[in-house]
Amino acid sequence: MSEQKNIHISADSIRQWAQNCLQQAGAEEVVAAAMAENLVAADLMGFRTHGLMRLRYNINCLRDGSSRPSGDYSVISKRAAVQLWDADLLSGLYVVPQAVDTAIAMARECGTGTVIVKRAQHVAALAVYLERAVNEGMLIQLMCATPGQQVVAPHGAKSAWFSPNPFAIGAPTQSHPILFDISFSMTAAGKVRKAIAEQQPLPYPALITATGDYTTDATTFLHDPASVLAPLGGQELGYKGSGLCLFSELWTLALSQLGRHQEQPGLDANTVWIQVIDPSAFGDVNEFKAQAQALVDGMKAVTPIDKNYPVRIPGEGAMATRTRQLQSGVEYSPELWRQLAKVADMMQQPLPELTT
Amino acid sequence: MSEQKNIHISADSIRQWAQNCLQQAGAEEVVAAAMAENLVAADLMGFRTHGLMRLRYNINCLRDGSSRPSGDYSVISKRAAVQLWDADLLSGLYVVPQAVDTAIAMARECGTGTVIVKRAQHVAALAVYLERAVNEGMLIQLMCATPGQQVVAPHGAKSAWFSPNPFAIGAPTQSHPILFDISFSMTAAGKVRKAIAEQQPLPYPALITATGDYTTDATTFLHDPASVLAPLGGQELGYKGSGLCLFSELWTLALSQLGRHQEQPGLDANTVWIQVIDPSAFGDVNEFKAQAQALVDGMKAVTPIDKNYPVRIPGEGAMATRTRQLQSGVEYSPELWRQLAKVADMMQQPLPELTT
Repeated sequence: MSEQKNIHISADSIRQWAQNCLQQAGAEEVVAAAMAENLVAADLMGFRTHGLMRLRYNINCLRDGSSRPSGDYSVISKRAAVQLWDADLLSGLYVVPQAVDTAIAMARECGTGTVIVKRAQHVAALAVYLERAVNEGMLIQLMCATPGQQVVAPHGAKSAWFSPNPFAIGAPTQSHPILFDISFSMTAAGKVRKAIAEQQPLPYPALITATGDYTTDATTFLHDPASVLAPLGGQELGYKGSGLCLFSELWTLALSQLGRHQEQPGLDANTVWIQVIDPSAFGDVNEFKAQAQALVDGMKAVTPIDKNYPVRIPGEGAMATRTRQLQSGVEYSPELWRQLAKVADMMQQPLPELTT
Repeated sequence: MSEQKNIHISADSIRQWAQNCLQQAGAEEVVAAAMAENLVAADLMGFRTHGLMRLRYNINCLRDGSSRPSGDYSVISKRAAVQLWDADLLSGLYVVPQAVDTAIAMARECGTGTVIVKRAQHVAALAVYLERAVNEGMLIQLMCATPGQQVVAPHGAKSAWFSPNPFAIGAPTQSHPILFDISFSMTAAGKVRKAIAEQQPLPYPALITATGDYTTDATTFLHDPASVLAPLGGQELGYKGSGLCLFSELWTLALSQLGRHQEQPGLDANTVWIQVIDPSAFGDVNEFKAQAQALVDGMKAVTPIDKNYPVRIPGEGAMATRTRQLQSGVEYSPELWRQLAKVADMMQQPLPELTT
């Protein structure tokens, strides 16, 4: 049935449309352009839960004042290799790329450059910011925590304390860049919501119920009391994921001095850790790329458990998905397209013509 | 039976004895003192597989020339916030603390300080180096990889490519420091060897056999072909552990430009990533400690799955173990004490008198 077929739309036209909607919602042109660019970038890489699925959320945030439509971040403190910024509710989609650029400049001077951004609204997929540094021959590490969010249990608990805490790195090689983006929990809240919407169980027990049991039942996430996300490592090794969450929150919330124990505006926004490393501070940059390539080549040269499933390099799948969608259009499910059509009506910005 | 009872010995006297043995094996006094200190420090914190259990290994390395007994590291390259060192086979137990000190000094200037040390012999437990920075009010991150070692499988593989890649962080709070030390594999090679020696299965399936099956059978580690360590995350989420291993090896091996694809002396030694962060570069250091304390307090305030097992803070157990052993003597099993007695004979350094 045609209803089941994905919509295909050129990246340029859907990006321009999204930008128009965001401007209509009050965002300054340069802010709206960055927001649209990084949401569509997530769709292009296949991170659907961080793409235009969240356009309406971003529009709502602009309209209700929880996302600031224009203006600049402020620099709270700095030393030669670090800066702390306050985004004061500007979108992370707009501020994070600027923080990456500042981190790159500091890395050129000092070897590493670190920017912590607090109170940044929607940050979406960390993966979309990595290539900005990698294309300059740099390594990059990103982490993000949300002081207003508690959804991941510490190891041994059945109630939540941490936010999901995504972690991403990027590095250049002699071929494709390495792009790695995970969360320190067993699954992401977005994947649980997707499973609920699709009336499917989770593929493995990643939730801990109020009775302390691991479950695949996504609907427990809506119960009262709700289930919580298990830390990476699960029943046996959850102390590792739990400690990695603590690591992320120390490096973001504690260093930026805005924690979830405080009663302050902006806790629903995000704190982002951005660190860029210039490999030329340690040696020849081409030799670094050869070393990174050797790591990737070695991963590929192992014996797969199933010969039909060779080992994959982080980022490989996302880059292939992007290449395909840049050629034949960004793919949206009919359901999401209907949601975007509602946004189009609401913002009086007609959806662009379909590619096919 | 008395054979089953642990030996108790004062930390000072066993440390001095170990130092004497290492000096007898050729190590310069200052090198031997650091080696003994950090091996006993691991025993004190309960990291038994990284303590004096490895004294004989260190003596052998000194004797056969694979551990350099004296001299200095060299600085290969530097920028304001980073340095690359070549330990040229000096013990990591001696060089890493110096690298931490240099990283602290750079962090004071620049906000962060990073030292990568390549070709460091035995590094032992990363946890023992953390407090050196934490006691100065700093945060610290350590990673270690070994170019000559392949024992962890990339996700989807049944043969190894990565080394075990330990990862550790430390941070000050208003009370006890946070000390976190894990590996990015499901278990450590030392724990597998311990299970073999004790003729016990592993507590959970952490090995992947040559047929591609997850197993608790530690003896498969001695088979030909041998089983390999599974990456953190296991069958469902091993891509996370696998990517974290790649992260560690990019940040150590690739940045230091000494990878396992090279045919070069020193591959059996280790490459260590040391990064120190000065929280006062971002804000008041006492407010940082209050923020870190709030994170710890929040972890403790959750609802435990089993009310008899409250959530533990990383480092809590190790520090309690150390306090106990500093009071009533370091505990050694009769089996390990017999091994140390053999070392005592070999080095003609009589073991110290027992505390009890």
